[in-house]
Amino acid sequence: MMISRRKEFAVSIAPDLVLGGEAILLMVGPCSVESYAQTRSVAEAVTRAGIRVLRGGAFKPRTSPHSFQGMGKEGLEILRDVADEFGLLVITEALAVAQIPLVAEYADIIQLGSRNMQHYPLLWAAGETKKPILLKRGFMSTVVEWLGAAEHIASRGNEQIILCERGIRTFETSSRNTLDTNSIALLKLLNHYPVIADPSHATGRADLVLPAARAAVAAGADGLLVEFHPEPEQALSDGRQSLPLTKLREFKDEVSHLAAAVGRSVI
Amino acid sequence: MMISRRKEFAVSIAPDLVLGGEAILLMVGPCSVESYAQTRSVAEAVTRAGIRVLRGGAFKPRTSPHSFQGMGKEGLEILRDVADEFGLLVITEALAVAQIPLVAEYADIIQLGSRNMQHYPLLWAAGETKKPILLKRGFMSTVVEWLGAAEHIASRGNEQIILCERGIRTFETSSRNTLDTNSIALLKLLNHYPVIADPSHATGRADLVLPAARAAVAAGADGLLVEFHPEPEQALSDGRQSLPLTKLREFKDEVSHLAAAVGRSVI
Amino acid sequence: MMISRRKEFAVSIAPDLVLGGEAILLMVGPCSVESYAQTRSVAEAVTRAGIRVLRGGAFKPRTSPHSFQGMGKEGLEILRDVADEFGLLVITEALAVAQIPLVAEYADIIQLGSRNMQHYPLLWAAGETKKPILLKRGFMSTVVEWLGAAEHIASRGNEQIILCERGIRTFETSSRNTLDTNSIALLKLLNHYPVIADPSHATGRADLVLPAARAAVAAGADGLLVEFHPEPEQALSDGRQSLPLTKLREFKDEVSHLAAAVGRSVI
Amino acid sequence: MMISRRKEFAVSIAPDLVLGGEAILLMVGPCSVESYAQTRSVAEAVTRAGIRVLRGGAFKPRTSPHSFQGMGKEGLEILRDVADEFGLLVITEALAVAQIPLVAEYADIIQLGSRNMQHYPLLWAAGETKKPILLKRGFMSTVVEWLGAAEHIASRGNEQIILCERGIRTFETSSRNTLDTNSIALLKLLNHYPVIADPSHATGRADLVLPAARAAVAAGADGLLVEFHPEPEQALSDGRQSLPLTKLREFKDEVSHLAAAVGRSVI
Repeated sequence: MMISRRKEFAVSIAPDLVLGGEAILLMVGPCSVESYAQTRSVAEAVTRAGIRVLRGGAFKPRTSPHSFQGMGKEGLEILRDVADEFGLLVITEALAVAQIPLVAEYADIIQLGSRNMQHYPLLWAAGETKKPILLKRGFMSTVVEWLGAAEHIASRGNEQIILCERGIRTFETSSRNTLDTNSIALLKLLNHYPVIADPSHATGRADLVLPAARAAVAAGADGLLVEFHPEPEQALSDGRQSLPLTKLREFKDEVSHLAAAVGRSVI
Repeated sequence: MMISRRKEFAVSIAPDLVLGGEAILLMVGPCSVESYAQTRSVAEAVTRAGIRVLRGGAFKPRTSPHSFQGMGKEGLEILRDVADEFGLLVITEALAVAQIPLVAEYADIIQLGSRNMQHYPLLWAAGETKKPILLKRGFMSTVVEWLGAAEHIASRGNEQIILCERGIRTFETSSRNTLDTNSIALLKLLNHYPVIADPSHATGRADLVLPAARAAVAAGADGLLVEFHPEPEQALSDGRQSLPLTKLREFKDEVSHLAAAVGRSVI
Repeated sequence: MMISRRKEFAVSIAPDLVLGGEAILLMVGPCSVESYAQTRSVAEAVTRAGIRVLRGGAFKPRTSPHSFQGMGKEGLEILRDVADEFGLLVITEALAVAQIPLVAEYADIIQLGSRNMQHYPLLWAAGETKKPILLKRGFMSTVVEWLGAAEHIASRGNEQIILCERGIRTFETSSRNTLDTNSIALLKLLNHYPVIADPSHATGRADLVLPAARAAVAAGADGLLVEFHPEPEQALSDGRQSLPLTKLREFKDEVSHLAAAVGRSVI
Repeated sequence: MMISRRKEFAVSIAPDLVLGGEAILLMVGPCSVESYAQTRSVAEAVTRAGIRVLRGGAFKPRTSPHSFQGMGKEGLEILRDVADEFGLLVITEALAVAQIPLVAEYADIIQLGSRNMQHYPLLWAAGETKKPILLKRGFMSTVVEWLGAAEHIASRGNEQIILCERGIRTFETSSRNTLDTNSIALLKLLNHYPVIADPSHATGRADLVLPAARAAVAAGADGLLVEFHPEPEQALSDGRQSLPLTKLREFKDEVSHLAAAVGRSVI
């Protein structure tokens, strides 16, 4: 009854780093890149904690056109510069077909967001790059539709696909979304792509992020995408669900204990 | 307690045709343009029934990349040629930023689909055209998010926006989606854009299309987007929810009776 | 394409009154019976409007044990006395097996509530009476489960069953529930029990009650259960969704126009 | 960031056994008591695995009145006899007010089911006993409504309440329900009642039960209610989600590893 891990389908992030193998991969950083200083302070903490992948958004999809929309290309440059200084890898989101070449140039993993899971032209454009693609589940999409979206990417030749469960929309309103651990476990049985979780969006509350991260790992997740910020209460977006950098080491330790119980390590 | 109709916010579709005034506008045709002959036979029936707007898809978003994806540019040309022959207006969907200029050239109304309701680059591109935009509600989106998406279009200068309720995803599986008449009524109170309904997608079953159309009109809808096909059982997509052309006249008559009861006519 | 009405399955409410025939039946009154005076003033207005059935709750299921729980047996006595004075019929809810004999003694129709749709002992007890039973849909129950619940009642010998759509729980929060007109239309095709709607609970907002009532009738509903109160802003429960008695005549007129458009009258 | 466990609110199941303390409590057995032999073979396996609580249903709520409805009082007698022989404790469901005294006589914990979470007369009757009450979450109920239901029990003087998350109804259909680990974690922050999970109903699939059990424990659950059957493929109810007794020891071992990682043991 052990969770099977099929090494042959792991996604190669760097010459010495795979996602979908024995180790659970942490990808950590702020919702939005806000400045060089902010990004650098995150990168320092990430490096100290022995984590390899830095997350951060340069293009932000926002419900209202009047909210902060991200730093754009300048944000990508900051991410790349800081990551290179610390020897980190970068994951960041592309939200338009036209942004794919640019993001592919700066990022090690291209993220496609929940609202875009069925925007097929974007999936096709991502499928034409050679970069690993992190495909977030639509927050109201079934597992079958999610695998259909992955097929749209793969149909253009790119099978370096990582599925990311980020919570679904349900009638429950006490958390922003409902983390669907059943789907994580089901995908480990049904499909060969690695599956990770985003406990920050899946809960929308900083005090639920660690329990959700633990639950995802317990259900079989191969990685975690988590929002950490130097000063969550000052964040330009998603501050309510971000953990402070001062908690990063403790977070990794707690997840590592859980991972050990299912025979895995954490990077 | 009459449903208020604010003529000053009606969307102008043609010099002699507004959407959002006293008359309820029917937009009728097949899910996909499949051939010149199919499109022409629809246009004949539409014209005979006194309907002014022809719908048909040239680009089809499909869950699987292996399904029929539409005729593309050739489909647009067929639509325009046939519409011009009969003096009809055309509504058709653009599903990528790059398709917007092309669709704007051939169509009188540009449709943005449910899966793309929060694909902001597409909304912005549509907002930069001068054509009326029909914005379908995301099947997983709240009314607030839907109005936010409309604001993204309007923020680029185009306020010729038509909102289209097309059913939401709920736990109920006996119909494909749940038509949300409450939202139609609420939008008539809250916002100034015309609101129409798509009873074909909102039900997914031909035998429920007429009751859903009636319910939408009763709740205040300003128009209906309905799938009719010469031979539904042969349709390349959505055959199960299409009505046969032989029922078009009867359908219009039934909706007209309903409309009269709320003080409106039907074109 | 007319909505079929199978007179042979209509439920007999009184010697001269059926539910499920040509006429759409209105059942009107306050959420809770609060006093003799309140009930009498409702009954006067109901009578003046030519409506035959008075609704009112004596036992109130409330989420918190600290809210008003209804007047109990005294409420039933008030309802019966006032109804007899005006020659009205009474519908009221039983929420426990032990209340069934008492409610059956005072009421003409026994209502079973949404939270109890799958409380089988209550269904069985109702099935052992000779009174018509109004079975509200569970707010998160499918049509199939709802028909299963009706079968539980019928299995004890009582087939005088009225199904009542009262809105379902969905992700949309701008109305309290989502009126599911598709299910009304579907039940008219699939089953032989009359189907009515409760636009008050289906919307939770007084300003949406009329559009919801219209939509339900347009979809084929055989009756409406609607909350009216002498002074909604003073109501002990559900004031936000109650209409004032001063709007009753206008409400009936508006619904009658709609009903005429589908070939029906309103009592 | 450790999960807090407030020993002072633990529920006392037996003089030497609490629920809500350091140890995670397993409650294991078949969906329905089917015979003396079946129950005895489960009790033997349960005892051998060092588990203290035997579950089994005597009264079964079923969607159709034509399905197997349980063995009734005879089932309770079998449960008690077998439990006494092996020194086990019994948890079983009461689904009607009238069954409460009988179930209280035979059981150590009275279970109230998901469909009855808002059947207040049943909650009140349970609140008048001295037995611990396991209150399953309505599959359509919010956390706030669930705590409201617990208050209904407590309002009659019984605060020995155990909350049981058993999956909620969402749009996802690949598992029967969606286990809501966020709610488990949230309740550990908000309320003082112990919280357990039912991974069998939360998934509806035997192959997902272990991952769901792990996820629930990782999120902070104080116990697990799990369906095991001697021959799942022969079960009169819920066979598809039952694990075979031959897997019981392995199941307990796997959960124990997880529990150790959050500083807890398993009984």
